[in-house]
Amino acid sequence: MSHSVLILPGDGIGPEIVAEAVKVLITLRDEFALNITLEHALVGGAAYEASGHPLPPATLDLARAADAVLLGAVGGPQWEALPIALRPEKGLLGLRGELGLFANLRPAILYPQLAAASTLKPEIVAGLDILIVRELTGDIYFGQPRGIETLPSGEKRGLNSMVYTESEIERICHVAFAAARQRQHRVCSVDKANVLECTELWREVATRVGRDYPDVQLNHLYVDNAAMQLVRAPKQFDVIVTGNLFGDILSDAAAMLTGSIGMLPSASLDANHKGMYEPIHGSAPDIAGRGVANPLATILSVAMMLRYSLAAPALADLVEKAVVRVLDRGLRTADIAAAGTETVGTAQMGDAVITAL
Amino acid sequence: MSHSVLILPGDGIGPEIVAEAVKVLITLRDEFALNITLEHALVGGAAYEASGHPLPPATLDLARAADAVLLGAVGGPQWEALPIALRPEKGLLGLRGELGLFANLRPAILYPQLAAASTLKPEIVAGLDILIVRELTGDIYFGQPRGIETLPSGEKRGLNSMVYTESEIERICHVAFAAARQRQHRVCSVDKANVLECTELWREVATRVGRDYPDVQLNHLYVDNAAMQLVRAPKQFDVIVTGNLFGDILSDAAAMLTGSIGMLPSASLDANHKGMYEPIHGSAPDIAGRGVANPLATILSVAMMLRYSLAAPALADLVEKAVVRVLDRGLRTADIAAAGTETVGTAQMGDAVITAL
Ligand SMILES: CC(C)[C@H](C(=O)O)[C@@H](O)C(=O)O
Ligand SMILES: CC(C)[C@H](C(=O)O)[C@@H](O)C(=O)O
Repeated sequence: MSHSVLILPGDGIGPEIVAEAVKVLITLRDEFALNITLEHALVGGAAYEASGHPLPPATLDLARAADAVLLGAVGGPQWEALPIALRPEKGLLGLRGELGLFANLRPAILYPQLAAASTLKPEIVAGLDILIVRELTGDIYFGQPRGIETLPSGEKRGLNSMVYTESEIERICHVAFAAARQRQHRVCSVDKANVLECTELWREVATRVGRDYPDVQLNHLYVDNAAMQLVRAPKQFDVIVTGNLFGDILSDAAAMLTGSIGMLPSASLDANHKGMYEPIHGSAPDIAGRGVANPLATILSVAMMLRYSLAAPALADLVEKAVVRVLDRGLRTADIAAAGTETVGTAQMGDAVITAL
Repeated sequence: MSHSVLILPGDGIGPEIVAEAVKVLITLRDEFALNITLEHALVGGAAYEASGHPLPPATLDLARAADAVLLGAVGGPQWEALPIALRPEKGLLGLRGELGLFANLRPAILYPQLAAASTLKPEIVAGLDILIVRELTGDIYFGQPRGIETLPSGEKRGLNSMVYTESEIERICHVAFAAARQRQHRVCSVDKANVLECTELWREVATRVGRDYPDVQLNHLYVDNAAMQLVRAPKQFDVIVTGNLFGDILSDAAAMLTGSIGMLPSASLDANHKGMYEPIHGSAPDIAGRGVANPLATILSVAMMLRYSLAAPALADLVEKAVVRVLDRGLRTADIAAAGTETVGTAQMGDAVITAL
């Protein structure tokens, strides 16, 4: 069976890093019998420039038809003055919402070869391996009502709505508990149940879903405490499950604990193995076009795609092992460069992974 | 002129640590001519047990009448099953809201004597001195509508509202810019303006207020990036200003960077120098009643009270210097104990500060 993969390079360094990941996909197709077809389309600022909208209908149609989407990154300073509805980010949020990609998996893994890059003491982060499961199609990102209104006094008032239904919470918690069964059998659910009723419901549902997984240990943390614990003792965590907004904040903090955010992939899944895959880092406009960006997070996103959407776990392992081998050889892009290693550009790094395959 | 100070010990370790801070206040009154009167009342879980409400009318009346409030901490596992409206936290939130304490100042300072306690590498945090200015009476903490409703389908739905008006944003930004003028003249405003309209308004207003302070440099970060930057390079920050929810999360992360959260005080101010002062750590039920908690954050909260509400900056300096002297002498409570130092209990630490005064 052939799988269709949609390639969305996006903005900033997106096109450069995606080009390397596409090389990997093509190598797997041509030399490892991976049965895929590739399509390309525009999203984000690039799509806005070409068509006036960050998520053109043609892109959305292709994304709906695809089995998996590979996204680079979106956004840049030139689009910051646009209204929220036209910003590059809206392209990304539109894809998440329209495709029903409610389950965002964000591993925060410390590669031993890159341990020195962390700002934390080695004993605090050595062996770090957290999986953050972030709900991605609900919460204050999508809640209505929202907007800026002018009060009778003439003063403006901004409003957003944090909303969760039981079924939305249930399905993401099932993803988290199921993932924990493949790992250390521990789930930490993060909320602000002492203040926000929306997350009081979250805690209630997480507790209920947890009863279906008696072999998985569940605990709850308030989001402020979770942010502290990530700094204090991140290795206490196995799987963290939380809402869209808290997940946005905590997953970036967790990623930065590793010191090598250029290495971290993510998957955003619907209920049927369809997924969008992207590096967790952004579009890095400051280094765009210079051929120095790290393509490994995007290549590792391909590995997640192989595992979750293309039913090719053996190839996923292969890609991950190739990345490790390249690190072992001492090759580093500028963001993870260190004494005694060889600094290479984006394309060289991609080529090195292909060779290692 | 005599100032009235209301003492609210609260729950958990609250009574123990507040007792030491009260010793400091009494010493300043009796030996340094500080003109104060002290009242005591119940708040939080302790008030709920005594009267069925975490913020009894009598406590609120005393708080309204006082020039300053010293609070220990509230909360504990025995009250977690209560509805949100009756939880200890509601006592704290009620005080903040009813007293109009919109400006929460949370310094995150690394004491050189305690540098080893940080989980971050010394070069990343040495000399760390951030002031987080958190809006405290708006945002999703107080926004309406809120609650859990049952949908026609029978499913429950939780809702909270993130709300800010221009004037609410303006006044907290003025506090931040004014504070920056006493410091490094840099303000970082944190929002999620690429997704949330409410914080798009925040950014607009922060930018406008910033024009009144041409000598202060303003930049903006998205909250996820801010969480990352706190881990990556915290010394880039001088003053951070943000809303109630983001401030809750980021200030706890920032505090933990120092490794000695038992040292960090906070002030919550209204528009007229009235304030509530409290350690930023919690009620630590696990060590309550054992006489081992660190009273220094509460004692340093007294210093903030002296500076902001009691018009006694010289005495504030005196208290802060006394704390430093005690650290220099090598005295440590268990939470900050290290090789080569002397571990002391809560009361001994309080006494040592009195002696150092
Ligand atoms: C770009 C932005 C809309 C997005 C988000 O907030 O979800 C990003 O920060 C992320 O985490 O993928
Ligand atoms: C106890 C809780 C309600 C409170 C808050 O969320 O504001 C606390 O975390 C704080 O930061 O002071």
